[in-house]
Amino acid sequence: MSWFRNLSRFSAINVSRRQPGVNADPFLLSSFNFFSSNSNPAAVKPSLEPVQYSGMGPTKPHEKPRVVVLGSGWAGCRLMKGLDPEIYDIVCVSPRNHMVFTPLLASTCVGTLEFRSVAEPIARIQPAISREPGSYFFLANCTGISADKHMVHCETVTDGEQTLDPWSFTVSYDKLVIALGAVPTTFGIHGVKEHAIFLREVHHAQEIRRKLLLNLMLSDVPGISEEEKQRLLHCVVVGGGPTGVEFSGELSDFIMRDVHQRYAHVKDYIRVTLIESGVRLVRGTVKDVQDQKIILNDGSEVPYGLLVWSTGVGPSPLVHSLDLPKAPGGGRIGVDEWLCVPSVQDVFSIGDCSGFVESTGRQTLPALAQVAERQGKYLANQLNRIGKAGGGRAKSGKDIDFGEPFVYKHLGSMASVGSYKALVDLRQSKEAKGLSLAGFISWFIWRSAYLTRVVSWRNRFYVAINWATTLVFGRDISRI
Amino acid sequence: MSWFRNLSRFSAINVSRRQPGVNADPFLLSSFNFFSSNSNPAAVKPSLEPVQYSGMGPTKPHEKPRVVVLGSGWAGCRLMKGLDPEIYDIVCVSPRNHMVFTPLLASTCVGTLEFRSVAEPIARIQPAISREPGSYFFLANCTGISADKHMVHCETVTDGEQTLDPWSFTVSYDKLVIALGAVPTTFGIHGVKEHAIFLREVHHAQEIRRKLLLNLMLSDVPGISEEEKQRLLHCVVVGGGPTGVEFSGELSDFIMRDVHQRYAHVKDYIRVTLIESGVRLVRGTVKDVQDQKIILNDGSEVPYGLLVWSTGVGPSPLVHSLDLPKAPGGGRIGVDEWLCVPSVQDVFSIGDCSGFVESTGRQTLPALAQVAERQGKYLANQLNRIGKAGGGRAKSGKDIDFGEPFVYKHLGSMASVGSYKALVDLRQSKEAKGLSLAGFISWFIWRSAYLTRVVSWRNRFYVAINWATTLVFGRDISRI
Repeated sequence: MSWFRNLSRFSAINVSRRQPGVNADPFLLSSFNFFSSNSNPAAVKPSLEPVQYSGMGPTKPHEKPRVVVLGSGWAGCRLMKGLDPEIYDIVCVSPRNHMVFTPLLASTCVGTLEFRSVAEPIARIQPAISREPGSYFFLANCTGISADKHMVHCETVTDGEQTLDPWSFTVSYDKLVIALGAVPTTFGIHGVKEHAIFLREVHHAQEIRRKLLLNLMLSDVPGISEEEKQRLLHCVVVGGGPTGVEFSGELSDFIMRDVHQRYAHVKDYIRVTLIESGVRLVRGTVKDVQDQKIILNDGSEVPYGLLVWSTGVGPSPLVHSLDLPKAPGGGRIGVDEWLCVPSVQDVFSIGDCSGFVESTGRQTLPALAQVAERQGKYLANQLNRIGKAGGGRAKSGKDIDFGEPFVYKHLGSMASVGSYKALVDLRQSKEAKGLSLAGFISWFIWRSAYLTRVVSWRNRFYVAINWATTLVFGRDISRI
Repeated sequence: MSWFRNLSRFSAINVSRRQPGVNADPFLLSSFNFFSSNSNPAAVKPSLEPVQYSGMGPTKPHEKPRVVVLGSGWAGCRLMKGLDPEIYDIVCVSPRNHMVFTPLLASTCVGTLEFRSVAEPIARIQPAISREPGSYFFLANCTGISADKHMVHCETVTDGEQTLDPWSFTVSYDKLVIALGAVPTTFGIHGVKEHAIFLREVHHAQEIRRKLLLNLMLSDVPGISEEEKQRLLHCVVVGGGPTGVEFSGELSDFIMRDVHQRYAHVKDYIRVTLIESGVRLVRGTVKDVQDQKIILNDGSEVPYGLLVWSTGVGPSPLVHSLDLPKAPGGGRIGVDEWLCVPSVQDVFSIGDCSGFVESTGRQTLPALAQVAERQGKYLANQLNRIGKAGGGRAKSGKDIDFGEPFVYKHLGSMASVGSYKALVDLRQSKEAKGLSLAGFISWFIWRSAYLTRVVSWRNRFYVAINWATTLVFGRDISRI
């Protein structure tokens, strides 16, 4: 096969590139000694071991002021999209280089949508991040904030892959936006983290999908008992919020349309149970979660093959530990009407990790994509305005008029419940008058509404294609 | 939020299904005692512990004869697609419920194609598998064959997920087709399995993609040394076969088009080296593979961040261990001109795991998708013809005319080398006259040729959409 050799020679010459280091290291390698204890990454406490840090030092007068954004969810990404890269350099620190369209995540578990259609790379949301010499994305976790020094502490994420040991670095900021989101709540119930799957990230959806398809296939193999088959194909969803309901709806669609066709042998065994914990909707409150069964408060046992936990969210341990003002109850970072964190300078917080401080007299907003998105948009405009007025630098925005405070207007709640039906509630609160729909029209509104929120044209296009393909060909069932 | 509660009640009623067990267990639960040792899964040796097996017993006179297919690669899937479900029940045993379009796998590593576009579920290739009462797909590995008993031994795959412990079962066959494929060769070089990534399955492509994007992002984080940055962004491909060359080409495309745009800060550091081991193409023969570097024969060291190994394939340990005739050299299962395994009854073998026995005077065919696909198609027609003539049952096909032997006609070799160029060799051998092309026209032929081989319309459609989107929007770089 002589063409092999020709090819490899051709290719080897063509693709080898060996001119690294044309530009010098663009980082301000501001190494300094800093006393830190690694055991508690959130708190910045003195220890006896001096640690050598490197990172990005304070911006110089000839550089643009730097906005550091912690997190890449709805709030952080909407903010970055709106920031003017002519005014600011943007540095994002997050363990995830993409944003997840959480409201569409449930659809990916059963193959209605592809995983990639619900993830948008940050570099597409704000191209300056990869193009501007002073703008960066760092794949890292924030481990602490030194608000007095205008500096955040970070540690790289290597995600189990042994390429490199994680290392620490610092980033100085002119303005800091904390958009760290929230983590799922377990109400201290034993075994939830070990045995249940959350539905917050793409890898959760992938795990649910793999387990669902594995269980469907295993239940078809000779030698399995009737009881075991029923357990394997029992999908339990705990939590009656939008995520739990939408996931149940998608699962129901999947069973009706696809399992009946593609897994005809086991179709009569599969069932879905939704447990609204606390409300005693189906059978009761979850007391304990074990390997293959849930124990309810009344002692009854619910065997399961797949357990999805979506009972709501709360602040992360890092948010809890930060030495910043807090909103009443729940430990969210406290902000004023302009989404500024009081008592420190140049620090803002948006999305699920923040709430109004008591003095505002405002209620904490629900942990919804809608709220986060609106706050990100508002704050981007604020920061652009401040920057244009010459207040972009650290400690220089004090005298600038902050303008209108942030006001949240609820545009309606939506949830798809499968079978091309959805429930749409366009009332501003349950007491208010307004439009409330159910059925096919709502389903259409639901789908259209999400399409317009999906950030890039690429993903809008893909989501539309995915939905069309699912309608025509059914869902994809390959377990990859 | 009262609509939450309404939704969950609605949904809970709607999606709970509780009528399992309408039909009785469809399996012939032919439990029997069988003496087996679990320590060597391939060999069926007697031990002191009697093991209870269940499974599918021999077919009854009122049932269709059963073809058992081991494997779900090109050979096995093309065979199943061609088998007539009116004549046979089809049972497929494989650790993978989908077929992978291996020639397109390299494109998924860099985001040109989605992972799902190159995977086709077996239930779509042969719908009878999920619909016919006697046809099944079992997610399991074959652990041994008792040709004298017309029976295969299997063990379920649970893939690290602790849903269930794996269990063993047996499947009786009327006709058996061994299409187990091959495994990558390492030439006994130390460290390859630990540190290099192969490119045979979708999860390999996913691993390569994750590592490539991780390295690109890590190399951008403050605190990394110049040397480390260069190492991280050095992609080494060992093996100058079509897979290695196509992967290098895709990587080169990715660097030119996407890395330059999306990772502008590190674009001058990334490089690709292709090592054709044995041919001393770039620098030499690989002697040892370590965590972060390769040692060549002359003692020189090649630091790498990503190492892809694609030096060819050989028979798996199971194929080696089977007590069946072998082809000369290399340990492949021996077959005659009709792809029958001599000396045993009703056993056939196709694809990379098989080769012609010495008495045929034929050379073993190359381990190519093209060969496997042609053999699958041929054998499906053979089995359909035998079945129609009443020879479908075990031990009943002896007197039926086997017809024309299998003849392989090489239709040409193709490899894309990036930048919309490909090399196409339509000669039957390197000595023969014929067409040999390079450049854009070849690239177009290459893409079209693969599109026509992609099995379902759904995937043809998706691949075309993926290619079009990549051309318009560039590649996807979200690391999910």
